[in-house]
Amino acid sequence: MAGRGTCGCCCCCCSRAPLNEDNARFCLLAGLILLYLLCGAAIFSALEYPFEIRARLLWKQQLENFTRRYRVNLGALHTLLRQYEQANGAGIRVDELRPRWDFSGAFYFVGTVVSTIGFGMTTPATIAGKIFLIFYGLIGCAATILFFNLFLERIITMLAYIMRWCHERRLRCGGAGVASSREESSGEEDSLEGWKPSVYYVMLILGLASVVIACSASTLYSTMENWSYVDSLYFCFVAFSTIGFGDLVSSQRERYESQGAYRLGNCLFILMGVCCIYSLFNVISIIIKQTLNWILGKLACSGQRKLKRVKRNAVQPVSAQFPMGRQRYTDGSVESVLHLGRRLSGEMISVNEFMVSNKVSLALLQKQLSETAHQGPRQSYGHQNGFSGGVGALGIMNNRLQETSVDR
Amino acid sequence: MAGRGTCGCCCCCCSRAPLNEDNARFCLLAGLILLYLLCGAAIFSALEYPFEIRARLLWKQQLENFTRRYRVNLGALHTLLRQYEQANGAGIRVDELRPRWDFSGAFYFVGTVVSTIGFGMTTPATIAGKIFLIFYGLIGCAATILFFNLFLERIITMLAYIMRWCHERRLRCGGAGVASSREESSGEEDSLEGWKPSVYYVMLILGLASVVIACSASTLYSTMENWSYVDSLYFCFVAFSTIGFGDLVSSQRERYESQGAYRLGNCLFILMGVCCIYSLFNVISIIIKQTLNWILGKLACSGQRKLKRVKRNAVQPVSAQFPMGRQRYTDGSVESVLHLGRRLSGEMISVNEFMVSNKVSLALLQKQLSETAHQGPRQSYGHQNGFSGGVGALGIMNNRLQETSVDR
Repeated sequence: MAGRGTCGCCCCCCSRAPLNEDNARFCLLAGLILLYLLCGAAIFSALEYPFEIRARLLWKQQLENFTRRYRVNLGALHTLLRQYEQANGAGIRVDELRPRWDFSGAFYFVGTVVSTIGFGMTTPATIAGKIFLIFYGLIGCAATILFFNLFLERIITMLAYIMRWCHERRLRCGGAGVASSREESSGEEDSLEGWKPSVYYVMLILGLASVVIACSASTLYSTMENWSYVDSLYFCFVAFSTIGFGDLVSSQRERYESQGAYRLGNCLFILMGVCCIYSLFNVISIIIKQTLNWILGKLACSGQRKLKRVKRNAVQPVSAQFPMGRQRYTDGSVESVLHLGRRLSGEMISVNEFMVSNKVSLALLQKQLSETAHQGPRQSYGHQNGFSGGVGALGIMNNRLQETSVDR
Repeated sequence: MAGRGTCGCCCCCCSRAPLNEDNARFCLLAGLILLYLLCGAAIFSALEYPFEIRARLLWKQQLENFTRRYRVNLGALHTLLRQYEQANGAGIRVDELRPRWDFSGAFYFVGTVVSTIGFGMTTPATIAGKIFLIFYGLIGCAATILFFNLFLERIITMLAYIMRWCHERRLRCGGAGVASSREESSGEEDSLEGWKPSVYYVMLILGLASVVIACSASTLYSTMENWSYVDSLYFCFVAFSTIGFGDLVSSQRERYESQGAYRLGNCLFILMGVCCIYSLFNVISIIIKQTLNWILGKLACSGQRKLKRVKRNAVQPVSAQFPMGRQRYTDGSVESVLHLGRRLSGEMISVNEFMVSNKVSLALLQKQLSETAHQGPRQSYGHQNGFSGGVGALGIMNNRLQETSVDR
């Protein structure tokens, strides 16, 4: 049964006869990311290599000047510098920084752990600390991922409300004055029917929100830390995207003016920024996925194979037409069924025929569903959604794993 | 309409009269994470503070010894150390490291960017590099999130197949020999009916896979980098969870034995580890979510308010009984409906009554769905799933945003 085109590995599946579209998309994405990495490496190398060479020369010169002037043995100086590197690892700098492991420092540290930012300005040095970190991070990171997902849910709900409100406003102003006033009085929750926010608008709004947060935060950082504005923006992106290089870290000096307020503001900005950018990344990843589907569709269409317009039995349910991994229609929205139609099919069914068979099979599905609903709610729907592919981290697994976890 | 208990902010919603359960869960999680952070900060502070003090004393002593022995002006030495800090930022160490910005170094760098590991052993120093990083990371991180989610989908599908196979095997061995042989011949894809893998088993398997990968990788690192085994395990966790402190970074020396193989192995281990731990985090976050639901249920039950057993109109659809944000049943699985029953309801409906109304409303929903399916597939289902809460990063948004993105 593992031979039905649903193997989990990425590379071997490409050569299999009925090319599974999920695997094809996965491989296409992996290939594109690899290409993106290669291009990025080339560009960064071109941008930064000259600076690295200059920095190397500069440091060599500075070291020579020092040893010549103070007649210091170079080996001894190297030993000192190695000691300084080790001290650096413990968070010690020439210019006194805030203590690493007092309570507020440790709080900042655990914040960077659970958010997976990991600046590295503070790292555990003891063996006990390192082992504890592994277990602490395991729960903490999972909880934060859940937090981000719930935040995403909240923000999308809020955006949908606001955008619906704007949409209604536009509709009302746009001529249908009499009809809309009745609509308004008859209950506003009904007027959402048939309207959903566009992924592009949501991306735009989240992008704007991210820019506003990053710019406000950069203003704060550039005044408090004496960074340039570009450096501050760069820090904001690196922190908010949870990359967290640690070359620039906010709130590290021993003293600031109005320190408490700054530390609080720093925390809030990072929290808001991380939530916003996480949501933005997820929205962008949807658009990337649609692009992948479009590319796969194009690739399939432009292939040398002609469309095999094999008449399909229109009453046959979708589940029988498609291998397990591709039963998308069971998440209850017709959009997802339509979505299936746009996806690359291994056997190249024409979209029209596909729609017809879908409409019928949907009706069949409803019948089955309502029958089973009357039999009893604990009856499971493994047949319909055992492997229905809800896309997205938790979505997939909630779909697939919820039932058994309820039983236990 | 924004006043229907679905405000997106976290804190203000707690005080609102019909406490929205989504908001309640979000606030509970935020509170628990805060508590977790406070505890973690206290523990890490206790573990690491003594070491920090010792390290400070040690460095002070080393610096004093050096200045006394070589009669170096302390100010001049501080200047040199500051210069060394800057050189450090450009990736320069006393013991020669591999070049930062040759192609392979830049490739390692962009890998840590798009995966959001961000060790920080290499960071862009030029303004052009910093600005390019922002735009490069925006697309790259989104693509990688999609990659992780697709990987998660593939791995769960594969696990489900394997576990189904084991489940069938057990069933077959456990007595029902005659029945199962017929079942086997009649088509194995049907035997999945009513069976889904448990979230706990999946967690166990992913956890074991992570441990195996981390232990193998640690063996490699401890031999190649001369780290202790605990240090290697700590590095693996920090890298795989994308925290990426950068205190330990693999493959940084100028020369290794069989360097090409080591670099490739390093890449593959990090890729596999990150994918595995990402999946593990998401599975754990589901369990955390269930725990939150359980806590909320307990809180609601043990409250001073008695259950108001108000008889509800059983034929009324769920969508009319619950505010927008809580229509969970539209993802087509009865499990999610059951799930709703276990969730904290603002108005404290008894679970039995809830089930009855759900069963009926589900049947109503099916009727509506099948009617509309015959009207035409482009007809949207905003009324049923405009704000249906598919949980999880992409899942939610696919549910909510797909339709309009198709239209565009």
